[in-house]
Amino acid sequence: MSEGKIRRPKAETPKGFRDYFGTEVTERKAMLDAIGAVYHRYGFEALETSGVETVEALGKFLPDVDRPNEGVFAWKDEDDSWMALRYDLTAPLARVAAQYRNDLPSPYRRYAMGPVWRNEKPGPGRFRQFYQCDADTVGSGSVAADAEICAMLSDALETVGIPRGDYVVKVNNRKVLNGVMEVAGVLDPKDPAKFEAERGIVLRAIDKIDRLGDGGVRALLGEGRKDESGDFTKGAGLNAEQAEVVMGFVSAKRDTGAETVARLRELVGTSAIGEEGVSELEQIASLLEAQGYGPDRIVIDPGVVRGLGYYTGPVYEAELTFEILDEKGRKRQFGSVAGGGRYDDLVKRFTGQAVPATGVSIGVDRLLAALRAKGRAAAEAAGPVVVTVMDRDRMADYMAMVGELRQAGIRAEVYLGNPKNFGNQLKYADKRASPVAVIQGSDEAARGVVVLKDLVLGAKIAQSATLEEWKDRPAQLEVARADLVAAVQKMLAQ
Amino acid sequence: MSEGKIRRPKAETPKGFRDYFGTEVTERKAMLDAIGAVYHRYGFEALETSGVETVEALGKFLPDVDRPNEGVFAWKDEDDSWMALRYDLTAPLARVAAQYRNDLPSPYRRYAMGPVWRNEKPGPGRFRQFYQCDADTVGSGSVAADAEICAMLSDALETVGIPRGDYVVKVNNRKVLNGVMEVAGVLDPKDPAKFEAERGIVLRAIDKIDRLGDGGVRALLGEGRKDESGDFTKGAGLNAEQAEVVMGFVSAKRDTGAETVARLRELVGTSAIGEEGVSELEQIASLLEAQGYGPDRIVIDPGVVRGLGYYTGPVYEAELTFEILDEKGRKRQFGSVAGGGRYDDLVKRFTGQAVPATGVSIGVDRLLAALRAKGRAAAEAAGPVVVTVMDRDRMADYMAMVGELRQAGIRAEVYLGNPKNFGNQLKYADKRASPVAVIQGSDEAARGVVVLKDLVLGAKIAQSATLEEWKDRPAQLEVARADLVAAVQKMLAQ
Repeated sequence: MSEGKIRRPKAETPKGFRDYFGTEVTERKAMLDAIGAVYHRYGFEALETSGVETVEALGKFLPDVDRPNEGVFAWKDEDDSWMALRYDLTAPLARVAAQYRNDLPSPYRRYAMGPVWRNEKPGPGRFRQFYQCDADTVGSGSVAADAEICAMLSDALETVGIPRGDYVVKVNNRKVLNGVMEVAGVLDPKDPAKFEAERGIVLRAIDKIDRLGDGGVRALLGEGRKDESGDFTKGAGLNAEQAEVVMGFVSAKRDTGAETVARLRELVGTSAIGEEGVSELEQIASLLEAQGYGPDRIVIDPGVVRGLGYYTGPVYEAELTFEILDEKGRKRQFGSVAGGGRYDDLVKRFTGQAVPATGVSIGVDRLLAALRAKGRAAAEAAGPVVVTVMDRDRMADYMAMVGELRQAGIRAEVYLGNPKNFGNQLKYADKRASPVAVIQGSDEAARGVVVLKDLVLGAKIAQSATLEEWKDRPAQLEVARADLVAAVQKMLAQ
Repeated sequence: MSEGKIRRPKAETPKGFRDYFGTEVTERKAMLDAIGAVYHRYGFEALETSGVETVEALGKFLPDVDRPNEGVFAWKDEDDSWMALRYDLTAPLARVAAQYRNDLPSPYRRYAMGPVWRNEKPGPGRFRQFYQCDADTVGSGSVAADAEICAMLSDALETVGIPRGDYVVKVNNRKVLNGVMEVAGVLDPKDPAKFEAERGIVLRAIDKIDRLGDGGVRALLGEGRKDESGDFTKGAGLNAEQAEVVMGFVSAKRDTGAETVARLRELVGTSAIGEEGVSELEQIASLLEAQGYGPDRIVIDPGVVRGLGYYTGPVYEAELTFEILDEKGRKRQFGSVAGGGRYDDLVKRFTGQAVPATGVSIGVDRLLAALRAKGRAAAEAAGPVVVTVMDRDRMADYMAMVGELRQAGIRAEVYLGNPKNFGNQLKYADKRASPVAVIQGSDEAARGVVVLKDLVLGAKIAQSATLEEWKDRPAQLEVARADLVAAVQKMLAQ
């Protein structure tokens, strides 16, 4: 068979996935490290589960449970049991909390970071693998656990470079929403399962208010809504009066936390669950206040409900408040970068016993995008010193040089391509963002010297109209071979 | 439906996978960080591809290609194309090198770390997800690239805590083996495809010499071998004379590199490919020598062949030379923790153009196990300071305390379980390996003080027969509330 007839595999990243290069990797790692250090200081312990879980253990908790593929990548194991890639870090935690319940400390504070996978239609900026960075407390029903997570989230954002004032952690409570729905007649406290579908629609509708606006949400609260594509989404079937009550809840935020709480108290009326929710919000605010986390960082905001069905109490969301330009050059708020809440029933799925839990997930990739949009990402890392190869036969000499530089802690490499064309070597050094090139031909070798080329300075000289400002600093320098390391160190320090 | 009739999901780690807790996670992270820093200093750039690849791009390069499932976890995407979890980090690199060949610097040095997945029968200590930590140079055919990888591997091992003398990097060359096989008549230089199956069997047989011994390998070189279970593995069909030549190669190692090279030269006789291989080994040794990497770290050892089929030139393997006790209490050498080699054809699969490449993979989990076996793992990390809860109503006070401690950089947490039973709180602190417990009842609160319990000292006193040695240091201390942070810092520093 001739070469031409061989069908070659396509060198393609699979659809919806992407590759990360150089600083894209190290920047994310630095962010994960910084957040992990905050979580650790708060007493949380690392946990790493594998990417694979049984489908049974994962359960179905993605917001859009109605899609045919259910949002996960799944396959059959040899023994015919179904396995799947985890779609978040919460479901594996619930499994771990149940599996090791006799061994883990209780309450169990844990943090986890790593990729999760979603079998979704890829879109611009939407990938089928992305990182999450979670912290959860399992086994505490106290709102102090929720307050702690909010404070920690605030610390984490500031630690990675979002200054106070550029973000806000919004706190709400599902119980207040339940109270409001009780008042509106879509919650029967004696039969919580009744109206569950309607409440799910209400929840997801409110969660989309930023995108759909008041009108869109009202449509979904009522009969339903036809989107731009003509697709119709069935609504919750609330009448105008009921919808009014719900919309009143969404816009219940007032200037101060106390005023918001007072307004919420009005809205939940005599609902016991509603009153419980309002009182929890008050407690969270006061616990945070005691630690110095005031409304400049954390606020009560009834507009935040979170789309996930499994939350049972406090919910929270971190939003970046600064504006960025979107793809079309329009200003818009950056929006949510983290969210979470209390989910008291996930562990119960396994054990039958109620285990209260609360936690947060930081969308690391979105947060990185925000820092880049604000120009606050770490500076591009410097490339390595490149030792060029003038004489192919003296490779051992060049490797000795690079060895010495590395021993001194200097990032360095010898050119390993075909050394014939020296211009290519300098182009390579340029592509590598190399600060210094080391050159030694046979002449220099005979004289016991090396030439150092200051590539940073060289680039500056190439850009500037006049050499005046650089004249005191030579872009090229000959030094004794024995002084190689010291001279490179000096050049790098300039 | 009654609770009892609900079928609950099993809380189980999927078969062959495992969970990692606390220091198991942080120790591995510290090791990956340390190795990554070495790779970076050598000029390698980070690359992170996703866990998922197309089956087409992955190819079939696992050593045991004859198993039915072919060793990978695979499933069909919506568009009916097959996707799979990566089984190593080399196949994705080959895909990346082909896909971005016009944008990447050439040669391209990259490092990558992360989990890989094998759809294999799980066994003791063998998991279906594990970490690899790779560094590869793509686009350089120079043996200087191989030498560099060997030096870097040596540095990496010493950096993570394997002292010189406790490891050795063994280098060999597939071309030498090919030369030997040419001499033995199982390689026809004019038709490289001929005898390929036989050479694969020879390769895998030699790779198993530690396990099968001389006799087992000889059987596989000849007619074949029946294992303990009675299963028969077909041999390469070499006659006794041919097998003798191959066995001579495996045991060609002599006291010095020069002697080994001389012996190999004898063995390959007039084979051109064999001579090329011997000469490459000589060059690698001299390049390493120039950087100070002598035979105390890196040696030529013809016993190392590596099982993978795709290697085309130098192969290398890092072995730990110290003895550990196995599960049955017997002494044995720890063995291989890293390996790699030159594979010049993997990128060609995609592009049709030859792209030389060489690289190493460190088995991080095995290396960690080795360090633990030698008692060289990092000390168990200290738990957090635990602020106990005496009065449920004063949670805000306790959270203020823990907030102050965290602000001062002290790892601390407030007890978030049910505070009713104070004994449980101290048991919790014990389980958390907490060094200090902070206690403030209403009496202490009224007097503006807190009590600090030194739990490390407490544990020591509980263990020792006499209090004499501890009498100067009280295990419990009352300090002013305002001095909380300073007093805890002092207690932690002791």
